[in-house]
Amino acid sequence: MSVYTTVTSDDLNVWLKGYAIGALSDLQGIASGIENTNYFVTTNHGRYVLTLFEKLTAQELPYFINLMAHLAQHGIPCPSPVASLENSYLGELNGKPASLVSCLQGKSIEQPTTDHCAQVGEMLASIHLAGKSYAPAMENSRGPHWWKMTAPEVMPHLPMAEAELLREEIRYQALYRFQDLPKGVIHADLFRDNILFHENKLSGVIDFYYACNDVWLYDIAITVNDWCVTSEGQLDRERMLALLKSYHAVRPFSAIERGAWPVMLRAAALRFWLSRLYDFHFPRPGELTHAKDPVHFQRVLQGHIAFQTELQRIWVQ
Amino acid sequence: MSVYTTVTSDDLNVWLKGYAIGALSDLQGIASGIENTNYFVTTNHGRYVLTLFEKLTAQELPYFINLMAHLAQHGIPCPSPVASLENSYLGELNGKPASLVSCLQGKSIEQPTTDHCAQVGEMLASIHLAGKSYAPAMENSRGPHWWKMTAPEVMPHLPMAEAELLREEIRYQALYRFQDLPKGVIHADLFRDNILFHENKLSGVIDFYYACNDVWLYDIAITVNDWCVTSEGQLDRERMLALLKSYHAVRPFSAIERGAWPVMLRAAALRFWLSRLYDFHFPRPGELTHAKDPVHFQRVLQGHIAFQTELQRIWVQ
Repeated sequence: MSVYTTVTSDDLNVWLKGYAIGALSDLQGIASGIENTNYFVTTNHGRYVLTLFEKLTAQELPYFINLMAHLAQHGIPCPSPVASLENSYLGELNGKPASLVSCLQGKSIEQPTTDHCAQVGEMLASIHLAGKSYAPAMENSRGPHWWKMTAPEVMPHLPMAEAELLREEIRYQALYRFQDLPKGVIHADLFRDNILFHENKLSGVIDFYYACNDVWLYDIAITVNDWCVTSEGQLDRERMLALLKSYHAVRPFSAIERGAWPVMLRAAALRFWLSRLYDFHFPRPGELTHAKDPVHFQRVLQGHIAFQTELQRIWVQ
Repeated sequence: MSVYTTVTSDDLNVWLKGYAIGALSDLQGIASGIENTNYFVTTNHGRYVLTLFEKLTAQELPYFINLMAHLAQHGIPCPSPVASLENSYLGELNGKPASLVSCLQGKSIEQPTTDHCAQVGEMLASIHLAGKSYAPAMENSRGPHWWKMTAPEVMPHLPMAEAELLREEIRYQALYRFQDLPKGVIHADLFRDNILFHENKLSGVIDFYYACNDVWLYDIAITVNDWCVTSEGQLDRERMLALLKSYHAVRPFSAIERGAWPVMLRAAALRFWLSRLYDFHFPRPGELTHAKDPVHFQRVLQGHIAFQTELQRIWVQ
């Protein structure tokens, strides 16, 4: 149960006087979510998600919360932050930065079809386009700099072959600098658990707390590595093509993106392999149950390396 | 059929390239609505209402459209304007100013109960509170100045007793100047057809194109004069009390508001009696079928005059 900070109806009744969403009728803790405390809040105006931020600070949060507001205003079905009577999306509740956002319909799915992947591709391209007019910027906190800092920490815990694979991949990625690839706001974590479907129609995109400004193609690679990969870590080409095609229909790829694609798929696999290795070997107190198996992304990475030449050929044009 | 300007799927497909809401899947003209052209627009992101403004200009519209965006961000279930890729809520389509807004669930009701009226009171108070942080200002285009300009135009068309009632009411209202009453953004047209209910729960507030900055109590009077009045023009005290009580629970009334209440009810009745008289005697081409019977609001006004002393006693505290 991921409720780290308890909120009572009495706490919330007082807090909601600072909003124009009516009176509280129901309050339920939400079990999922690793990093924050979340509650479903129902008032006579509707259903909301209340988040108390356990790690992100009031200084870091505006980029993410204002981004959700911006994307929601542009027709992206993401949580829409509710402004207080003082016109702020961010408040404080029980000593933690806190926000209320709209509650979206739908559930995440575990076994995506090509149709689901096509919808994801379309939505990702729409997010990239809608993000173009979002002025604030945020560096990628899980980029090459982080790889180089983190790899030496996990290296001593790895068998030799894996340590070598990690070292070699970081070296390989450092050979490439994609200054000319189109960039913008990226979600950076668009896994299956961050997209909701209602009656097989994409109904929501959630969890923007890794969003940052980086290469769009990298965001697509992160997404493909989850949506278009089997549980054994093998790329499903049909699903990948479906995703790429529908993305391309909204935001057409440039020629250099094709050239960079296999390297990006490897970079995206590296990033999650490494973060899972880190979480596995350095679990945070009470979070062991959430640590995901790092081996999955090792396999994804190895698959991309093995089929690199072929990956270059599978493309939308 | 209120589609004054035709929009084809081809027109719209081109126009929607300026938005991040996906591809058009359905387009339907909307029959209701007197002043603008409206269409239901369905894309893979959702359902929207496209409005082409036939009278309001691109200079006048931002107050209303930004107000809807502001209220939606504060948790008021009103149409939420969709921003274009150029970050604008207002575009141009087929030569007219045009906007896309979210489509709300629910239908308007004709026979409100005390429970419906209580929900309306709560929502109106929430709108007034949420509007406090909306910076732009707009004068009431149907206020005392307009009464004084318009009354002489309809006067020659009225039987003597009615002309006398109108003249006397304008004179009476001029005796009162409520400088100290709390003011802010008001909807100014919160009739039954501008509120939607879904399964008896208030699900939407629409049509903000008469919104302006004026006395909050006047907005309540306009609302009560429609929601809490019988088809014979008689005030239903139970419904009125339900509306006032639930409003008061969100935004408590001040003592001077009680004193002003009967005069405000008369002012609100006068405003709609006069505009209906005007529309009746000076129909705009092709709009005769929409002109509503002015006699209804004459009765409402006469009822308020007859029961003025009693009205002073019916109050929430």
